Amino acid sequence: MQFKGANILSVGQFTPDSIQQVFATADLMEPYAHRKKRTTVLNGAILGNLFFESSTRTRVSFGTAFNLLGGEVRETTGMESSAIAKGESLFDTARVLSSYSDIIAMRHPKAGSVSEFAEGSRVPVINGGDGANEHPTQALLDLYTIAKELAHHGRQVDGMHICMIGDLKHGRTVHSLSKLLCLYKNIRFTLISPRELAMPDEVLDALTNAGHAFHITDALVGELDADIVYQTRIQQERFASLEEAALYRGKFRLNSEIYTRHYKPNTVIMHPLPRDSRAEANELDNDLNQNPNLAIFRQADNGVLIRMALFALTLGVENIVSKYDTDVVWHSQKSRY
Amino acid sequence: MQFKGANILSVGQFTPDSIQQVFATADLMEPYAHRKKRTTVLNGAILGNLFFESSTRTRVSFGTAFNLLGGEVRETTGMESSAIAKGESLFDTARVLSSYSDIIAMRHPKAGSVSEFAEGSRVPVINGGDGANEHPTQALLDLYTIAKELAHHGRQVDGMHICMIGDLKHGRTVHSLSKLLCLYKNIRFTLISPRELAMPDEVLDALTNAGHAFHITDALVGELDADIVYQTRIQQERFASLEEAALYRGKFRLNSEIYTRHYKPNTVIMHPLPRDSRAEANELDNDLNQNPNLAIFRQADNGVLIRMALFALTLGVENIVSKYDTDVVWHSQKSRY
Amino acid sequence: MQFKGANILSVGQFTPDSIQQVFATADLMEPYAHRKKRTTVLNGAILGNLFFESSTRTRVSFGTAFNLLGGEVRETTGMESSAIAKGESLFDTARVLSSYSDIIAMRHPKAGSVSEFAEGSRVPVINGGDGANEHPTQALLDLYTIAKELAHHGRQVDGMHICMIGDLKHGRTVHSLSKLLCLYKNIRFTLISPRELAMPDEVLDALTNAGHAFHITDALVGELDADIVYQTRIQQERFASLEEAALYRGKFRLNSEIYTRHYKPNTVIMHPLPRDSRAEANELDNDLNQNPNLAIFRQADNGVLIRMALFALTLGVENIVSKYDTDVVWHSQKSRY
Repeated sequence: MQFKGANILSVGQFTPDSIQQVFATADLMEPYAHRKKRTTVLNGAILGNLFFESSTRTRVSFGTAFNLLGGEVRETTGMESSAIAKGESLFDTARVLSSYSDIIAMRHPKAGSVSEFAEGSRVPVINGGDGANEHPTQALLDLYTIAKELAHHGRQVDGMHICMIGDLKHGRTVHSLSKLLCLYKNIRFTLISPRELAMPDEVLDALTNAGHAFHITDALVGELDADIVYQTRIQQERFASLEEAALYRGKFRLNSEIYTRHYKPNTVIMHPLPRDSRAEANELDNDLNQNPNLAIFRQADNGVLIRMALFALTLGVENIVSKYDTDVVWHSQKSRY
Repeated sequence: MQFKGANILSVGQFTPDSIQQVFATADLMEPYAHRKKRTTVLNGAILGNLFFESSTRTRVSFGTAFNLLGGEVRETTGMESSAIAKGESLFDTARVLSSYSDIIAMRHPKAGSVSEFAEGSRVPVINGGDGANEHPTQALLDLYTIAKELAHHGRQVDGMHICMIGDLKHGRTVHSLSKLLCLYKNIRFTLISPRELAMPDEVLDALTNAGHAFHITDALVGELDADIVYQTRIQQERFASLEEAALYRGKFRLNSEIYTRHYKPNTVIMHPLPRDSRAEANELDNDLNQNPNLAIFRQADNGVLIRMALFALTLGVENIVSKYDTDVVWHSQKSRY
Repeated sequence: MQFKGANILSVGQFTPDSIQQVFATADLMEPYAHRKKRTTVLNGAILGNLFFESSTRTRVSFGTAFNLLGGEVRETTGMESSAIAKGESLFDTARVLSSYSDIIAMRHPKAGSVSEFAEGSRVPVINGGDGANEHPTQALLDLYTIAKELAHHGRQVDGMHICMIGDLKHGRTVHSLSKLLCLYKNIRFTLISPRELAMPDEVLDALTNAGHAFHITDALVGELDADIVYQTRIQQERFASLEEAALYRGKFRLNSEIYTRHYKPNTVIMHPLPRDSRAEANELDNDLNQNPNLAIFRQADNGVLIRMALFALTLGVENIVSKYDTDVVWHSQKSRY
């Protein structure tokens, strides 16, 4: 895959090689993200950060990633502030807004809209989530986290056992992650959900075609020798009504007692965030916060690295980042990592 | 006109000389806007980008223009987030917010409010649109586009024939552009609109005083030897009701068939954007998108150049921009222009 | 007090020494705020400017202060755009958002929320106002203004006479300022408010313990030899109903006639802003705008200095700011100060 000038729209674009390229570039970004060094390689470049649907963490993560490479960010949030409301086509919006920046990160509530926008855009577009469709940077950061966490325990993605829990029907993140995992070998999936919220056949077929094994169940309890447990949130906004969402929230909670009793030591706990900490949901209990295998905040950290990598690759600077190194002269005493 | 420290509030401020100064400065900005070069001349300067009424493209265009000169942008959007809602006068708001920046770009839904704000401001204010009143940077970018497009065909603004179509009564852009054109000689205007939405007498009087000729009609069809056709949008928000707006939307559409049949070759097509692409409006059909005379996206590009020029002039750096040139080291492979 | 890495959450954290350190650092910031010089000391640093409750001036003041030190700003405004609405705990929000920046300024409508957030944050947090609770940077800028204005007249904070007017019950600013003033000696307070909106006992007790004298009254008229008169706004949003707020708005107005008749020359007039200039309120009349003792806009200016000082101190660069000086090459001709 040629990254320079490419749009990043779907996990389907990636090959094992191109994923390795993204991850190797992300590794190079660590000293900058950790404020050990500073680079000015993107000084003067402008990111158009277009969030037609709100998402604080994804939006800020993209913006921060661009700033950490030395670039500037021009931001647009919300639908109402957009000319789209005046009947403008996505093509026109893209044509105009893309002339204001060097690269675009975009989230939009409608599936397919980011690809449609990309056709009109004069600069590369990175999909920051288009409704129920795709959120490729989330899938990449999840996979990157899995690879890093397993490497920490001397393991690898090939041959691992991953357990996915929750709303596997609507969960965009588990769909995309599963598709990316089809580029690897001999993975075992345990898929835990209410029957009404089971993983779609399309994803199961992909797993089968990739030679992976999966086990479907609606029972959370029972011993699990998983390497990774990927918990998800019941996303109220994906249901027809609050009542329907409430039926499923609060099922399949994971807490310290269940973890200790049923999981093997060093099972890595992941979650796409935000986790719902209200009593009626509480899918991942706060009593796991001190567990060193809780990787959810490292996922967020890795998101910055992945987005820095994608910006560097699409703007063609991945090999010259360190040419523009300067010192970091400011530091708080709080330990960041 | 002395630009340094001046407010840019109205097209009425401009003389032929000062317009030439803006356009000459805009020409100098092209290599920066096209990312051939980078300048750091405004490093450390702060733009207060105050959009009390939303307008994505104008807001981002101002912000991008300032970034391209090396400056930072602090943004405020929406009325509700403003102290104005707590009974603060525009004078107070101006006094305080202007102390946070070096120059201000401001849009506000109320006519006259930007001038009122400018009286309290400690730094220059550029009007980004004040209700039905003025939007001088739009008029300047329209005129700049006309001059550039005509020059491309070996013609000039003096002596041209321009055709304006649509809601000429409420259209702030056609009013302001017409006033600017009064600084030129021997222009012919064809003004096409429903009778209820005709060009106001005040503008017609100005055209007459400038020695221009105009022809008023409510018929779109008929041969037209115009150099420029300036199509507009029926702005729903300027009407008393949706029903009233609907009466006029969809009249006076321009498409490839009408263009080919009635216009002479190389008639330049302009539109202030956004164009309404919904079936019931569709004032400028997408089948014109491949027509090289469709200048609507070049208008948007020119908006960045004009705003860069105004920032450089009001901050007194128009002659030293290139002293602060540095290289551009990032590039996507997509061709921007 | 060790500033490097510290959260700034409450006026209760400050000692006379640490206040002097903040004020001395603020003094150093003046040439940068006045654009006489420019510093790049925070180049590459990122401020997370999190305004979960809107406040244009405080938000922009923090952002501008960070820009003036050379840093970048990533901004979040409003509650609806936050994962908090999806049931995320403040701890999680803090853990994630703090990984995107080097320091955080935060406003939130709920008392105590900023401290709760700070517990989860990996970087220092500066409280930009948490509901009715605290707004320490406002109190510091008020105190800094008092000290500067009195010094201008050859006086000092110790031994001064300050008169506070308006809603002293709900007014967060007068509570915090009073507490800070308890670090000084022999201050006289005249507290003017309707009985229902009198200064709370907790604050009065603090004044007594500090050895200060206070006089409580509901009469605005009468001769006053105050050094400082601190007028406040009847904050509609702090009352149960519009009707209740209306009962008190418009009482205790201060205008030029009252000032001239009852106050001694050079009594400094302050107000936390925004002042309500609508006829029914008008707590501080516009006829005072030309009075050189009206310090309300100097308060806003001082807010930038104080926030620059706090950023420099918490990031540990207060002694090296001038090492990164560069020239300012852009200037408008409007006089800023």
